[in-house]
Parts: sequence; structure tokens; C-alpha cells
Amino acid sequence: MNIKKLNIDDIEWLDVNLEGAKNAKYKILLGDNFGVPNFILRVFKIFPGGHTPLHTHDWEHENFILEGEGILRNSKGEEIKINKGDSIYVPPFEEHQYFNNSEKDLIFICLIPRVRGMKN
Amino acid sequence: MNIKKLNIDDIEWLDVNLEGAKNAKYKILLGDNFGVPNFILRVFKIFPGGHTPLHTHDWEHENFILEGEGILRNSKGEEIKINKGDSIYVPPFEEHQYFNNSEKDLIFICLIPRVRGMKN
Repeated sequence: MNIKKLNIDDIEWLDVNLEGAKNAKYKILLGDNFGVPNFILRVFKIFPGGHTPLHTHDWEHENFILEGEGILRNSKGEEIKINKGDSIYVPPFEEHQYFNNSEKDLIFICLIPRVRGMKN
Repeated sequence: MNIKKLNIDDIEWLDVNLEGAKNAKYKILLGDNFGVPNFILRVFKIFPGGHTPLHTHDWEHENFILEGEGILRNSKGEEIKINKGDSIYVPPFEEHQYFNNSEKDLIFICLIPRVRGMKN
């Protein structure tokens, strides 16, 4: 069988090194490792008080929250609460920052297109 | 904010009505409901002894196992064990059937391209 698998616990967490990130880690589960054609499956872990960069880009995110809670916010002061079991769609060009305002780790799937900015 | 969210518990399970499916349900979390451009996030639940069709198609799956365990198998008798926390890549044209050979529900994310057969 050409089916490939990888357990989340068998992959090392990497630091999110982007400017504006704090106490945030990630790992890539399905991507160039298996030659996926269309979209990349990553998992992020944000520690209490941590966040990803406040930024925008021309591709979308699709998220699924595996553990914990937090908020998605922008520079206008708008925010959306996110909780375990939520699926979230962040459209292209939508400013966003994942922020963990809780006391437990926030862990979520974050999907991106393999070719960013791709439109169909 | 144009960010959309939907909790997994707020969406009804639908029967997998494809021929060859048994005791399998699914729900679509991110898809046409939010106008996603590139890939559709669905969740499947397979009850003990249940399965999806044994089939093949010209698009890939990307999976993440949320709960339970089972196997992926094909008509040659080959199989791969799948467990909670596994991410799985099923390439285009790879024959596959998700089968729950355990005594607990098997629940997993199953992503597909929005335009099936799309290649980049």
C-alpha cells in the first residue's frame, strides 16, 4: 500500500520563528514528507500567554481545535473565542492572530494550501 | 471579522450512503457552507464493525484520527493499523477502505480537495 502515516507524538515540535510570535510551536504532519499534492496539515501548540504573529496573507487557513481554548483577534480589537472541537475558516487576506488567553495549552490543526495564493 | 467557526457538536451526523458503506456517518465542517476555496474538512464516525466503501478515486485524502482505532485495507489483503493521533495520507488512485475492527467508535478528520482530481 502506498498509504503513509505518522503519529503526532512521533514528530518533534519546532519553534514558530516568525516575528511577532511568542511561545508558539508547530509540527508538519502531512506535507513535503509524503509529497502531498494540494494541502499541508500542520499542528500548532500555543502556550498560555503565547500567540502567533498578527498578520495577513493571500491564502486561507482551515483549523480544527484539538485541545484548549483561546481567541482569534485582529488589530481592530475584534476577537472570536475558539474552543476544543471548533472548526474555523480564516479567509485569504483576513488579518488574524491566534492568542492563548487561557491557562492551558492551545493545540490546533492548521491547514494551508501547498501552493499558497492558489485559487480555483 | 470574516472568520467563520462551527463546533463539531453543533452539526448533525449524516449517513454515508455510498454502496459498500456500513455503520458509517459523516459531517462537513468546512466546505460550501463557508465558501472555502481549496479543501473540504469533513469528520467521519465509524461504529464498531462498520466501514466506508472499498474504493479508489483520482483525488487524495488527508486524515487525522481524533478518537479510536481501526485499519485501512485494500482488496489485496493489505492493511495498515490506524490509531488516535495518526495523520494519514492516502494518495490519488490508491484503493482503500476504513474499517473499524475495534469495540469503540472510530472518529477521524477526512480532508479532500474542493475540486476533486485537481493537480498542481
